[in-house]
Amino acid sequence: MAGRTGRRPGDTSTRDQILAAAREAFAEKGYDGASIRGIAAGAGVDPALVHHYFGTKDKLFLAGMNVPIDLDALVKQVLGAPRDEVGVRLVRAMVGVWDSPAGASAVAVLRSAMSNVEIARMMREFIVSQLLSRVIAGLGIDRAEAPLRTALVLSQVVGVAVTRHVLHLDPIASIDAEQLVAAIGPTVQRYLTGDVLPPR
Amino acid sequence: MAGRTGRRPGDTSTRDQILAAAREAFAEKGYDGASIRGIAAGAGVDPALVHHYFGTKDKLFLAGMNVPIDLDALVKQVLGAPRDEVGVRLVRAMVGVWDSPAGASAVAVLRSAMSNVEIARMMREFIVSQLLSRVIAGLGIDRAEAPLRTALVLSQVVGVAVTRHVLHLDPIASIDAEQLVAAIGPTVQRYLTGDVLPPR
Repeated sequence: MAGRTGRRPGDTSTRDQILAAAREAFAEKGYDGASIRGIAAGAGVDPALVHHYFGTKDKLFLAGMNVPIDLDALVKQVLGAPRDEVGVRLVRAMVGVWDSPAGASAVAVLRSAMSNVEIARMMREFIVSQLLSRVIAGLGIDRAEAPLRTALVLSQVVGVAVTRHVLHLDPIASIDAEQLVAAIGPTVQRYLTGDVLPPR
Repeated sequence: MAGRTGRRPGDTSTRDQILAAAREAFAEKGYDGASIRGIAAGAGVDPALVHHYFGTKDKLFLAGMNVPIDLDALVKQVLGAPRDEVGVRLVRAMVGVWDSPAGASAVAVLRSAMSNVEIARMMREFIVSQLLSRVIAGLGIDRAEAPLRTALVLSQVVGVAVTRHVLHLDPIASIDAEQLVAAIGPTVQRYLTGDVLPPR
């Protein structure tokens, strides 16, 4: 783990070098496939330095995508709600991110994902493994049902992001965030905890 | 209306010429802004010839996008259902289109819409004015609520198309169409006829 730590740790360019290596690794190997160790090697620094600058892999990913959100706080906020309000809380959190300054970058990533399978995979793996799987686990949802519920939530959340921020479809493009939460929240609630499988 | 009808009407290239002019007009002026007359002028033919080959504007649009579906039959099929089954029928019809050979072209249009505002507008106007507004009118839905309901339906339907056909998110990407209908149908039903506005 000696690494080629030629640059001084305090160097601004070291941080940028790590971010560039991270973007490349995530795009090439997906979120799950990329490793801190591999990214450190790509940037020519010690893995400890990557941890020092960015903490965990999810934080490095968000920094690389230029989406400065606190995912831990967001998940905690969603799971702090009563079980039957989790849908509304999750939509409120997601709309809050899309509508924030960080949202512009998130939308840019979404747009790239439409024409680039590697970016699509990276984004999908990140959302599933970092956001939705933590919510699903926090709700104690059956593991066998988790993938379908996760994908359904994603289908609605991505659909809102696309209609609001890419296709600019009114009134979704201009509607007040809380109206959107009232309309979409119950859908996400049902996908998380309701009846979504066809009767046998 | 004399037009520059130099080519023989039976010419294969006349048909292609009209389609090319149609694609250009729809992309440039949107679905609502483009006219049969303008498209005929662009192709250097009489408007009557455009009607002869393609019928109405919606059919010309679908032919231009290479999405050979019968929209009239589709709308009739959806509206033929009892009111509380319209959501399921609409999702079944849309999934049927996306999954058909015509669906590949529809997905290509969707993909283009993500990076091109003109194509986004064209697609949005077509879906809203040709498909959803006919369903909304057929259901006798309050005109004041129609735009929000339409946009909500679109947000879910586009979200499914993106996760199933662009992001390839399993299990939505590989799930049986009827399972998707069972999961998504009730959402669309609520967006069309249920309670979607926040309590005052």
